[in-house]
Amino acid sequence: MGLSIFHFLYLPTLNTRVRHYDVVAAPQSGWSSDPFSLTARNGYLYGRGVTDNKGPIMAVACAAAELLGKRALDLDIVFLVEGEEEAGSGGFEETVRSNKNAIGPIDAILVRYMPSFFEKNSAECAMKQQFDMDSRRHAFKGPDLHSGVDGGANAEPMTDMIRLLGTLVDGQNQVTLPGFYDCVRPLTEQERQLYKVLSGVTQTPATVLSAKWREPSLTIHDVKVSGPTNATVIPSMVTSRISIRIVPDQDLDTIARTLQDHLVHQFKGMRSQNSIEVSIPRTADWWLGNLDDLWFKALEDAVRDEWGVEPLRIREGGNFTLTSLCLLYPTSRKSLLVMRSTFLWGKAL
Amino acid sequence: MGLSIFHFLYLPTLNTRVRHYDVVAAPQSGWSSDPFSLTARNGYLYGRGVTDNKGPIMAVACAAAELLGKRALDLDIVFLVEGEEEAGSGGFEETVRSNKNAIGPIDAILVRYMPSFFEKNSAECAMKQQFDMDSRRHAFKGPDLHSGVDGGANAEPMTDMIRLLGTLVDGQNQVTLPGFYDCVRPLTEQERQLYKVLSGVTQTPATVLSAKWREPSLTIHDVKVSGPTNATVIPSMVTSRISIRIVPDQDLDTIARTLQDHLVHQFKGMRSQNSIEVSIPRTADWWLGNLDDLWFKALEDAVRDEWGVEPLRIREGGNFTLTSLCLLYPTSRKSLLVMRSTFLWGKAL
Repeated sequence: MGLSIFHFLYLPTLNTRVRHYDVVAAPQSGWSSDPFSLTARNGYLYGRGVTDNKGPIMAVACAAAELLGKRALDLDIVFLVEGEEEAGSGGFEETVRSNKNAIGPIDAILVRYMPSFFEKNSAECAMKQQFDMDSRRHAFKGPDLHSGVDGGANAEPMTDMIRLLGTLVDGQNQVTLPGFYDCVRPLTEQERQLYKVLSGVTQTPATVLSAKWREPSLTIHDVKVSGPTNATVIPSMVTSRISIRIVPDQDLDTIARTLQDHLVHQFKGMRSQNSIEVSIPRTADWWLGNLDDLWFKALEDAVRDEWGVEPLRIREGGNFTLTSLCLLYPTSRKSLLVMRSTFLWGKAL
Repeated sequence: MGLSIFHFLYLPTLNTRVRHYDVVAAPQSGWSSDPFSLTARNGYLYGRGVTDNKGPIMAVACAAAELLGKRALDLDIVFLVEGEEEAGSGGFEETVRSNKNAIGPIDAILVRYMPSFFEKNSAECAMKQQFDMDSRRHAFKGPDLHSGVDGGANAEPMTDMIRLLGTLVDGQNQVTLPGFYDCVRPLTEQERQLYKVLSGVTQTPATVLSAKWREPSLTIHDVKVSGPTNATVIPSMVTSRISIRIVPDQDLDTIARTLQDHLVHQFKGMRSQNSIEVSIPRTADWWLGNLDDLWFKALEDAVRDEWGVEPLRIREGGNFTLTSLCLLYPTSRKSLLVMRSTFLWGKAL
């Protein structure tokens, strides 16, 4: 991780802005110009990462510099800019930890996301929840064989993997781990009303919004095979990567243990000749913002003042980085602000 | 495909030997020396492909040259040597077809495999059956999403794929396609006795040998995801590659249609928002040798004479190449000889 720290020490309060500048691999098609060359077209800048997240970095840095020049910046800002967010922010926590003195005390953390869901309409929103993720891998090991020669004689690792993965989510898209939904915080009447409003604004059923924003979920990201992936080879090892998004008030340790136990128990029931390994390389807890927080209200005011619209309050899932920050700055756990807007960062300034 | 033709025109009958010199990717570990540099150690040659299939090419070429020099080669030999067998022999059939005049008439085709199953014991065997393979792909297309942000709101293509693949093989490793086993030729008493003998020689249960050699099978080779395989990305497209090994007297077209119908029907039942595409880019029929064939008996005699052991008759699965040859040389359909032996091709000559 590259950590760039910009201190503006003229002012009494500290506000940290967190961003990353790396991107995931660009898809092959759908580009009108080379995604890795910034191209100006009709008043917009096009390129991989201009909205997620290079544009926002530059926009906020320019705004801060302008305000600073006018002596109108009424708080200190620390920028945390990293280049490994898309690869899991491996060194983030350690780097922040070893630079805590340089960063200094923090009152609030502001994260500004690229526009995604809201880019197609004009709603502004302030986000009040950050979910975090569990990455889990499990692997089957078996023999490396030729399907023409050895097919049918063995429980193939891929077949075991498919069967095991099939026990995690049912036909109604519900996670089938025992007790998985037991502790999910019930929907309040106030929330129900909010989802009604959001459903109208987004033209999306409230159940879909609720599934995305307040219900837990499980995703199978990848199934990797050992060997050359030839159509003649029975892969000797199959690895899968799954993640679980947990929500209030699920217990991280319980969910992790339940998943581990479930996979091992189900596999045992298969009586396979193969072996299984389950590892949970990284976990992160859920986080929920406080709507009555001073900083949250200030952010909502800023949205109202600047764009003249009533901010929408949504929850949204996220990543490990923010949880790392919450752990490092416990006082700011209730002051982590996540804002999403329709502002097109890629638009030429 | 590179086609090398060596004619030895002194003699009345023609015998074609088919080989390939390419290899699948080498695994990372388990090598004492660079797999792509031929290394001599304790009287053996080690290197990727020395048994499958460069060694055999050289050994037979040297033997033919020696016999030819002694005027003791009593038949003509055509060598078909290709370098794309492991990639599916894409140009094989076309190249052979367009060179039929140069190759001339063929009485028998001999394929010599690397030692695999039998390399750990001293049994010699002549193989009497060649199964061939069906490659099939199917793909799910869906939205490209972030699991933290959008997880739970959609039927994810991977979940659909896992569920669909799960309907192909049951917990007893049996293919669950309707009527899949109906036409499999019943085991005769003579075969039962043969498997008893083979079970003793190989120290392997007859049921396992039968599953490998005379029963059909289905293998899932690969599950590929679109996108970067990051632990935050819900892949928008998931592709799987499966193959089916069919056996006498299964009907290729019926099996192909059954698989296609099964996948489409099962997917329809899921009522998913995703879409499915099933394609069968290549099929090949089963082939079964004739034990009373002149050439087969000559091969058995040669094994007896050379190694002083009674050859074992086994069936074994294979690949597309041989079926292509059978189609091109219908008269040799009953004269395709496949021999496997314990001779260590890699041993220094």
